[in-house]
Amino acid sequence: MAVKLPRGFRAGATRAGIKPSGKPDLALLVSGLPAAWAYAATRNRAAAPSVQRGRELYASGRALRAVVVNAGNANCATGERGFSDDRRMAEAAARRLGVVPEEVLTASTGVIGVPLPVERVEGGLPQIPLTPEADAFAEAILTTDLVPKVAEAEVAGARIVGVAKGSGMIHPNMATLLAFLVTDARVPQEALREAWRGVVDRTFNQVTVDGDTSTNDLALLMANGAYGEVPLGTLLEAVEGVARELARKIARDGEGATKLMAVRVVGAATEEEARRAARAIAGSALWKSALYGNDPNWGRILAALGNSGARFDPLRVRIALQGIPLYAGEALPFDRRAAGEAMRAEEVEVLVDLGEGKGEGVAWGCDLTEGYVRINALYTT
Amino acid sequence: MAVKLPRGFRAGATRAGIKPSGKPDLALLVSGLPAAWAYAATRNRAAAPSVQRGRELYASGRALRAVVVNAGNANCATGERGFSDDRRMAEAAARRLGVVPEEVLTASTGVIGVPLPVERVEGGLPQIPLTPEADAFAEAILTTDLVPKVAEAEVAGARIVGVAKGSGMIHPNMATLLAFLVTDARVPQEALREAWRGVVDRTFNQVTVDGDTSTNDLALLMANGAYGEVPLGTLLEAVEGVARELARKIARDGEGATKLMAVRVVGAATEEEARRAARAIAGSALWKSALYGNDPNWGRILAALGNSGARFDPLRVRIALQGIPLYAGEALPFDRRAAGEAMRAEEVEVLVDLGEGKGEGVAWGCDLTEGYVRINALYTT
Repeated sequence: MAVKLPRGFRAGATRAGIKPSGKPDLALLVSGLPAAWAYAATRNRAAAPSVQRGRELYASGRALRAVVVNAGNANCATGERGFSDDRRMAEAAARRLGVVPEEVLTASTGVIGVPLPVERVEGGLPQIPLTPEADAFAEAILTTDLVPKVAEAEVAGARIVGVAKGSGMIHPNMATLLAFLVTDARVPQEALREAWRGVVDRTFNQVTVDGDTSTNDLALLMANGAYGEVPLGTLLEAVEGVARELARKIARDGEGATKLMAVRVVGAATEEEARRAARAIAGSALWKSALYGNDPNWGRILAALGNSGARFDPLRVRIALQGIPLYAGEALPFDRRAAGEAMRAEEVEVLVDLGEGKGEGVAWGCDLTEGYVRINALYTT
Repeated sequence: MAVKLPRGFRAGATRAGIKPSGKPDLALLVSGLPAAWAYAATRNRAAAPSVQRGRELYASGRALRAVVVNAGNANCATGERGFSDDRRMAEAAARRLGVVPEEVLTASTGVIGVPLPVERVEGGLPQIPLTPEADAFAEAILTTDLVPKVAEAEVAGARIVGVAKGSGMIHPNMATLLAFLVTDARVPQEALREAWRGVVDRTFNQVTVDGDTSTNDLALLMANGAYGEVPLGTLLEAVEGVARELARKIARDGEGATKLMAVRVVGAATEEEARRAARAIAGSALWKSALYGNDPNWGRILAALGNSGARFDPLRVRIALQGIPLYAGEALPFDRRAAGEAMRAEEVEVLVDLGEGKGEGVAWGCDLTEGYVRINALYTT
């Protein structure tokens, strides 16, 4: 299913020989016009050179022309060499495109601590066929993901396309999560940047797969203006919708996952506490295991809530699972078998009312399975 | 192996019919003399009535005579009734022992959200045979633990005995962790309380099995003075040794664990940051999975460090595993097979030098296995 990029964007990928599998592993996303951009990156202190470089570019305020991504090697914890390899990757992409390196963002994902085979990156870049479609790019940036993740939207004639990867090491503050959203709407860079942090906090930062936050991850939004202006509020809403859809797809494709968990918390004292409470539930290993076993063990939901830092009185909390009320200050009578059956779904919804205020928030996660353990016990990522 | 309690303490247990398995599930620990005590309990906001009552007793400053523990039912999230059931449990123990209820601490562990069968507790208490040994008590407080956990020490004639349970839902700030330490040394209650928080922070709060913190847990230290005074510093050191041994036993017996992980962080800016960094490594699902698979994947250790909040420069960090240096600012060459072999041990040691300062700390954990998932997917705790 070909997904057309917004006007003025092209993308493509090639097999540079970085992934041992020989699959496509080097990808370019290019804007014909200099684009306004907004960016959020991992807060991990061991952040990769690509992230450190990205922060500097971002601070410069300069427009962006392209992103070059390699999958299979995170170029992280690779010493001083990692920084020069990262720069060489940007330079090679700039040469290929006839722009300056300071207009090219780099991103890397994959194994940590192994030097990047930068000659392969340099050799591969000229080979990348650029097309107006997102698909080859979406495929090449994957690691242990099972499926490419693409989402799109249209607003008053302008288009938005988002592409992401996820899988393991996914947790708030940018897990092994790369997300690239592009639009042909014209938006002042300031407005874009101001809105992006909130969008990321409500979407990508609300996804948790295993509580580990990676060293390499980033969420990028580029607006090249090729279409023209559209109402800003409507555009940002659509951008958030695309980001939300990608966040859900990342959670659903978590390593070893058999189902998506969506946790909605209402009645929190603040929106931040609602989001935090939702994340704590989505991230609880005990509840994730129960979810896998189709066990409506709401005690684990309550215990996770209690550790979230969100304020509540256990006697006023309400918990429902797939629409079935399980707890309201104390255990409610419910049909255990029917609740277990309702959990055998592609998507399971947890709804919690903290009974404190008006704060609402959503988080996405997945179940914890033997598959997760096997993937991560045997695969050096 | 019978473990004799310190002078003036007796303990015992019975089958009250709370555990579906029919195993012993109701236990008493009694001091003949009023005892000075120190206490630390879960910070979970959904804390059980037993914890809320324990905090009130603690604040009263009154001496303690006994602890009554049931396993199989946490009496948590059981509404208003949970509070009166907890009180009835204390009253029944007090009647049995001829003391007042305010001298009896309660503790419960097991399934959340199911009313406590308090009549069984009341019926069982008179049946408990009290002996000078810790073993029956240590056995009865277990839930999914595989082995009882007891440790002891002697200081200048005084004795210290500690008994604990752990297993799943084990994480800093008192997981499903019950620990009871008793000594016949005479210690002013103030000194005991002042020291206990630090001991708990360096031992029980440094154990993580799955990142979930329970609603019910506590660590208690009782000193009844039956032996007499001993040098306080030496005594506290021995108390910490007993607590440390129990912490290690809890980690080793984590749900599904095949091995113990001991993480030692040195060179941190502060002691608190060292402990936090050690906990982050011990708690990383990705690293725990690699540990299970005997994969010396130090990149996951570095990534976990980066999320810990501890300050460091990745170019100055050093990581060793089982004494084998793996990383020093960048990947070191090492024999992957030999390192993998070295991980096939009962205990695996991770040593990290952050290169920042003099802070040191240790944490204990275990590997993440398919067994953990199976236990928690299928067992309603």
